[in-house]
Amino acid sequence: MARPRVVIVGAGFGGLAAAKRLRRADADVYLVDQRNHHLFQPLLYQVATAGLSPSNIAVPIRKIFRNDQNINVVMGRVESIDTERQHLVAAGRAYPYDYLVVASGAATSYFGNDHWADIAPGLKSLADAIEIRRRILLAFEAAELENDEAARRAALTFVIVGGGPTGVELAGTIAEIARTSIQRDFRRIDTRTTRVILAHGDDRLLKGYHEKLSDRARRDLIDLGVEVRLSARVINVEDDQAQIRDGNGETSSIQAKNIIWAAGVRASSLVASLDCETDRGGRAKVEPDLSIEGRPEIFVIGDAATIDDPNTGEPVPGVAPAASQMGQHAGNIIRNALRGSTARPAFKYLDKGSMATIGRAKAVADIKGLHFTGLVAWLMWGFVHIAFLVSFRSKLLAMIEWVWLYLFFSRGVRLITGNAHPDVHQPLGEPIDLNTPNEQTTAPVH
Amino acid sequence: MARPRVVIVGAGFGGLAAAKRLRRADADVYLVDQRNHHLFQPLLYQVATAGLSPSNIAVPIRKIFRNDQNINVVMGRVESIDTERQHLVAAGRAYPYDYLVVASGAATSYFGNDHWADIAPGLKSLADAIEIRRRILLAFEAAELENDEAARRAALTFVIVGGGPTGVELAGTIAEIARTSIQRDFRRIDTRTTRVILAHGDDRLLKGYHEKLSDRARRDLIDLGVEVRLSARVINVEDDQAQIRDGNGETSSIQAKNIIWAAGVRASSLVASLDCETDRGGRAKVEPDLSIEGRPEIFVIGDAATIDDPNTGEPVPGVAPAASQMGQHAGNIIRNALRGSTARPAFKYLDKGSMATIGRAKAVADIKGLHFTGLVAWLMWGFVHIAFLVSFRSKLLAMIEWVWLYLFFSRGVRLITGNAHPDVHQPLGEPIDLNTPNEQTTAPVH
Repeated sequence: MARPRVVIVGAGFGGLAAAKRLRRADADVYLVDQRNHHLFQPLLYQVATAGLSPSNIAVPIRKIFRNDQNINVVMGRVESIDTERQHLVAAGRAYPYDYLVVASGAATSYFGNDHWADIAPGLKSLADAIEIRRRILLAFEAAELENDEAARRAALTFVIVGGGPTGVELAGTIAEIARTSIQRDFRRIDTRTTRVILAHGDDRLLKGYHEKLSDRARRDLIDLGVEVRLSARVINVEDDQAQIRDGNGETSSIQAKNIIWAAGVRASSLVASLDCETDRGGRAKVEPDLSIEGRPEIFVIGDAATIDDPNTGEPVPGVAPAASQMGQHAGNIIRNALRGSTARPAFKYLDKGSMATIGRAKAVADIKGLHFTGLVAWLMWGFVHIAFLVSFRSKLLAMIEWVWLYLFFSRGVRLITGNAHPDVHQPLGEPIDLNTPNEQTTAPVH
Repeated sequence: MARPRVVIVGAGFGGLAAAKRLRRADADVYLVDQRNHHLFQPLLYQVATAGLSPSNIAVPIRKIFRNDQNINVVMGRVESIDTERQHLVAAGRAYPYDYLVVASGAATSYFGNDHWADIAPGLKSLADAIEIRRRILLAFEAAELENDEAARRAALTFVIVGGGPTGVELAGTIAEIARTSIQRDFRRIDTRTTRVILAHGDDRLLKGYHEKLSDRARRDLIDLGVEVRLSARVINVEDDQAQIRDGNGETSSIQAKNIIWAAGVRASSLVASLDCETDRGGRAKVEPDLSIEGRPEIFVIGDAATIDDPNTGEPVPGVAPAASQMGQHAGNIIRNALRGSTARPAFKYLDKGSMATIGRAKAVADIKGLHFTGLVAWLMWGFVHIAFLVSFRSKLLAMIEWVWLYLFFSRGVRLITGNAHPDVHQPLGEPIDLNTPNEQTTAPVH
């Protein structure tokens, strides 16, 4: 009998967790991602605001699995999935599967206005973060050179669309940078006059947190000089201008050179090719065991899936720990199935709590019904994330690492941040006939 | 009397040194650069080979001068210089000067074959380094996915054109990465079969070093598996192919997806607009005091200039210490002139020695006639450069820095690596009439 194959799409928190469960399993695992790195998304806003380097929050996928001979990392975009014949095509090659885990994540959603993307970038990838960082930094440079007062005001105006954790963190950090970090760097402008507007459609920030914390976040942002607009919808985005409709129905135009979109996400379009039921955000409605209806060999996890938490009846939130837990769950089922078990336990989400920073000594944390704010919450946040950074890619040892680079031949900064997939000009050798999925000829040579 | 103005073009080693000499001088200094950061170029190859992060070797220019109120940093490309009316135009604005320091550096030269640039990038900027890093990393990814043996060989073949320090360092490092760092990361290819070819036009590597060291560098590279071709000229570059004419007149074609150009530089085209005598590389032939003939108010320094060392009769080499020394020299003359001195001493180059690394425990150093090789030279190289990194942007303290970011409001990673100049859509306020260089209207508002 041929050795079973597991294909995992996406090396985010979900896909990574699933692959780790399949280390040394009696199967060939193919982990397909269009990027060569796993990204610690919760700190992506720190890259966008120049607090961290890209290499601090990203790690090459190959490095994670270098010692796992049964795990094959494939850098390539998934082009199609054939659920009947059980294979997918990525980077021009067919990968048959016995089990498929779709952990393809979410993309920024402009609610049908995709043409806003150029003006108002979202924050989902390292490339996004570097682009937003570039725009933020260039805004101050442009203002410094600008003579026209109105144009200078527009250059120094930031509109952040969406008041979830990313929007709150971006708004607070940009306000702090403008008011304190770079104040002495310029000669012709006073960066403290920078306007940061956070427009949020809901009537409170940080949905999913306790109301008390939502309100505290709002007050903390106001303290930092952010203009928080609740029940405010961005109804149009144009070059240098955002139109906002406030809760009272009034519409206003804000002249702003800098608009950042943190308002919505929708599941990767790959989910649509699975032919399963989806919600409005394009997420697959999965069974209790995270497989899709009628396809027990296909699991959809993380931001690509939606499932209600049996404890609360609420949907499991689209956060990193939930994706990891789902990945572990799917990985466990597959690992056990490879050993002959038919057990299909239901997924249970363990909510360890939520945290969001707002600025220096300002954060909110909602942990199993306990609420923390201010310095205490910020120290908790810092402790958790510094612990992560040290384990993930030791900053403390970065210097030593560089010396050891030579002594032990290990390289950390292997990040491809430009074009996201290999620039293969040539057809990929022998053409692969997708109509005859004979394992001998269509499978990647191992 | 109006306050004197000094305009410095370029914030490399030369321009930076000149500007530092003019801190708190009784003059307004404008330091113009198209990028927002100063770059430690000698370690640029480390970014290109994923050993260091961009932020480790770059520092925002504004940060360096944040406490020097008389120094204005202008991020913009210099469009023209009017030596008659004594002003230059950058980013749409006119900057009059009493003294001008041109430290605009050098660009990669393809000896008249500029169309090779897309295929064979040079290594002069962070953007170049990130692009080369991307190509090196993608080469292995493409090879892993490739079925055709010839195409796979081409993907795993690197041609480095030029055997100066950059070419030697790139060739040695790429060979080392392929043979040791990433060997276990792939499943279908053996990265140790990677070919690295160093083609050098001269009959020895590292011109300017002692012959003994040139030969040692060659042997060290061969030990690392690099094919060193001396007296070998690259006569054509095409997609996936480099044509080389060897010393014996034979021409061969090498199938290679990865070609990196480290062969030549020429002075920035700005020098041409100064209307002074230049050498074949476009460098200004400067007077002993580093000014140009007939224009005592204009200094050209660093890679933009050429001058013979009075001690040796040889041209001062195009290296960072020489540029720094020239910047200090020009800065001193201007500072003294602002105080009424007319002294114009001649520039003297102090050669502190040269070092190049080849790989782990492999380097050569030529210091005041003393020659060092192997581990000793490598430890010297490491000591000098680690000392630099610690002072330049402490890696050891990077972790603490990130915490202090919040405590003391300082941000290190403010690097713009995409488009190199502000994306100013609007005309820059009031039009500036370049025909009436009245200081009141043409000068930037301060």
